[in-house]
Amino acid sequence: MSDPKTAVQALTPDAIHAAYSLIQPYIHRTPLLTSQTLNTIASTPQLPESLLGTPFEGQTPATPTFRFFFKCENYQRIGAFKARGAFHALLRLIAERGKEEVQRRGVITHSSGNHAQALALAASTLSIPAHIVMPSISTPSKIAGTRSHGAQVVFSGSTSTEREAVVADIQAKTDAILIPPYDDFNIICGQGTTALELEAQYHDLVKEKPQLSVHGQGTGVLNAVITPVGGGGLNAGVATFFSDKTATQVFGAEPSFEGADDCRRGLQTGERVGMVKTLTIADGLRTPVGVLNWEVISDRSKVAGVYAVSEEQIMAAMRLVLERMKVVVEPSAVVGLAVCLFNEEFRRRVAQEGGEQGWDVGVVFSGGNTTVEAIGKLFG
Amino acid sequence: MSDPKTAVQALTPDAIHAAYSLIQPYIHRTPLLTSQTLNTIASTPQLPESLLGTPFEGQTPATPTFRFFFKCENYQRIGAFKARGAFHALLRLIAERGKEEVQRRGVITHSSGNHAQALALAASTLSIPAHIVMPSISTPSKIAGTRSHGAQVVFSGSTSTEREAVVADIQAKTDAILIPPYDDFNIICGQGTTALELEAQYHDLVKEKPQLSVHGQGTGVLNAVITPVGGGGLNAGVATFFSDKTATQVFGAEPSFEGADDCRRGLQTGERVGMVKTLTIADGLRTPVGVLNWEVISDRSKVAGVYAVSEEQIMAAMRLVLERMKVVVEPSAVVGLAVCLFNEEFRRRVAQEGGEQGWDVGVVFSGGNTTVEAIGKLFG
Repeated sequence: MSDPKTAVQALTPDAIHAAYSLIQPYIHRTPLLTSQTLNTIASTPQLPESLLGTPFEGQTPATPTFRFFFKCENYQRIGAFKARGAFHALLRLIAERGKEEVQRRGVITHSSGNHAQALALAASTLSIPAHIVMPSISTPSKIAGTRSHGAQVVFSGSTSTEREAVVADIQAKTDAILIPPYDDFNIICGQGTTALELEAQYHDLVKEKPQLSVHGQGTGVLNAVITPVGGGGLNAGVATFFSDKTATQVFGAEPSFEGADDCRRGLQTGERVGMVKTLTIADGLRTPVGVLNWEVISDRSKVAGVYAVSEEQIMAAMRLVLERMKVVVEPSAVVGLAVCLFNEEFRRRVAQEGGEQGWDVGVVFSGGNTTVEAIGKLFG
Repeated sequence: MSDPKTAVQALTPDAIHAAYSLIQPYIHRTPLLTSQTLNTIASTPQLPESLLGTPFEGQTPATPTFRFFFKCENYQRIGAFKARGAFHALLRLIAERGKEEVQRRGVITHSSGNHAQALALAASTLSIPAHIVMPSISTPSKIAGTRSHGAQVVFSGSTSTEREAVVADIQAKTDAILIPPYDDFNIICGQGTTALELEAQYHDLVKEKPQLSVHGQGTGVLNAVITPVGGGGLNAGVATFFSDKTATQVFGAEPSFEGADDCRRGLQTGERVGMVKTLTIADGLRTPVGVLNWEVISDRSKVAGVYAVSEEQIMAAMRLVLERMKVVVEPSAVVGLAVCLFNEEFRRRVAQEGGEQGWDVGVVFSGGNTTVEAIGKLFG
């Protein structure tokens, strides 16, 4: 990879549009959903008790107004936004090196699950051999999903270091080309197409139903978009797309469990945290933010802030989405919603900056790859 | 109620259209979804092992082709199709008796859950007091949902007889007007609007995406529609709507557990089964089919057949919908899909009548009112 400070300059809204033209035939335009119930719940102040033990204890709970627009990447192919980046990276690789070389050498990646399935699908669609290194503790459905696309699955330990060692070993034997899971220009551009669709669908929805603004369903100005931050490819891509649209602020969301909020902590000290070892239930968000992604996310003109939530808050948000919206999401998918519902610091910001009119907020549900057993284990 | 044989003559497609005009402002036009994954699974023959112990043991498994169109009434208001019937019955009552009388006397019903929430919502929307008799073993989320609309909840035993005794007692005291949960002309017409939307959306979908028919996504002829049968209001309403459209056959689906397949058994003997006591996981389908509904469903020119599935088959269908479609449904909602996936008698019929081209099948997902705890209990 070239120097991240140089590479980041090529990350422009135009690059996202170019990625979209390339991948459009291969991906789903996922729906943008609204929920009056969730708007109401999020626009109700938290109970004073729920602020006990936080820096906001004893203060009056914030009174933000939220109108949500949920970008449902759980309905994307392979059940997660990762299909966008994987198709884009592979299509670019074939364009640059020629199909013959890519087909002969094959591709390889490491991933806790969704990028694994995404690359397996992209590779089988484009007839490229694929090796996928997965942590042995990955969700069984994600392992099965990866295998079902004909990819060769190899297991590793769960830290980035352990995974990367196994990747290097296979590359030495096969000459397979690495498609990184998140810290990569083409991956970021692919994931950023989520924002391109979200923005277009938001304007269609608000335009189509002008009467809805009366009921608080959309003002025509998308004030904010919030996405999960794991490796940071999705957040960096979304931030890149909105970088020339000053009306829309982009935010990131992380689990706080066992230091999974590496990006938020890095922003506090001004230095990227390069190593994380956490078993947060948000299993897609256990990795540290990538180097190139950090360049985007730590640019305050692109990402306005990153906020963290507890495991209990992630579960509460997941329950609301399953029970009230009737939409199946994985824990990683709802950290953005959990921030809106429960992070008092963020809620004060929305109350203050949004005022009485409040904010139209795009919330990216990043994926839905869970099982009934996993839901049972979480809530049983 | 008037004589069912007379009342049934007024059950016409025009009556469904009239109901739709009345309720349209109050209900959601729920989405019609497709799933290539479920089409593929259902269009794969069952394993010979899965026919062991059935009348089809040792025979070659059927090779039907299904293209599904899922009418998602789990996304209806209160999370189930019951909102349609409840709004229709209450709007008609107000039109006939005048708002003053209905407001003074109030309304009452008994229901295992979804009709309860539906009438509570309709009553609160139209400012009518409501008493709801619910079995004490109802799903807690359904009880909470009913109460959240301001209705007075009274508990009873779980059989129809026990419920009706409590209703009579409250009526004696309050003069409240009964809105029956399913065995009622206006309820049937309301539920039938599900079919009206389904048919229109099917034609929009197939017309909009003509290329899809190449990939087996819709021929333009809706060959069949299958719905759950509990009290039978939904199935009777859907059959009424399609009664003048001979290209579309209507089917019913029931759980077989502890005799919950009362309608199927009644059709075999030619006589309605009036009493059922079952604790099938499909808790919306524990009641016997109503008298008026029976008149419709037992008319072979309206309903072409009713098929039953086991608890395990309902769970397997529910798992596929949650994990593969990422859509939250309650067990009652998936009995129609379970019949398509697992009932070999029905699958042979589709293979035989549909031939190589197969069938376009509308499948009504009747509701999605479950909880993460209930999912955990089922699959944990």
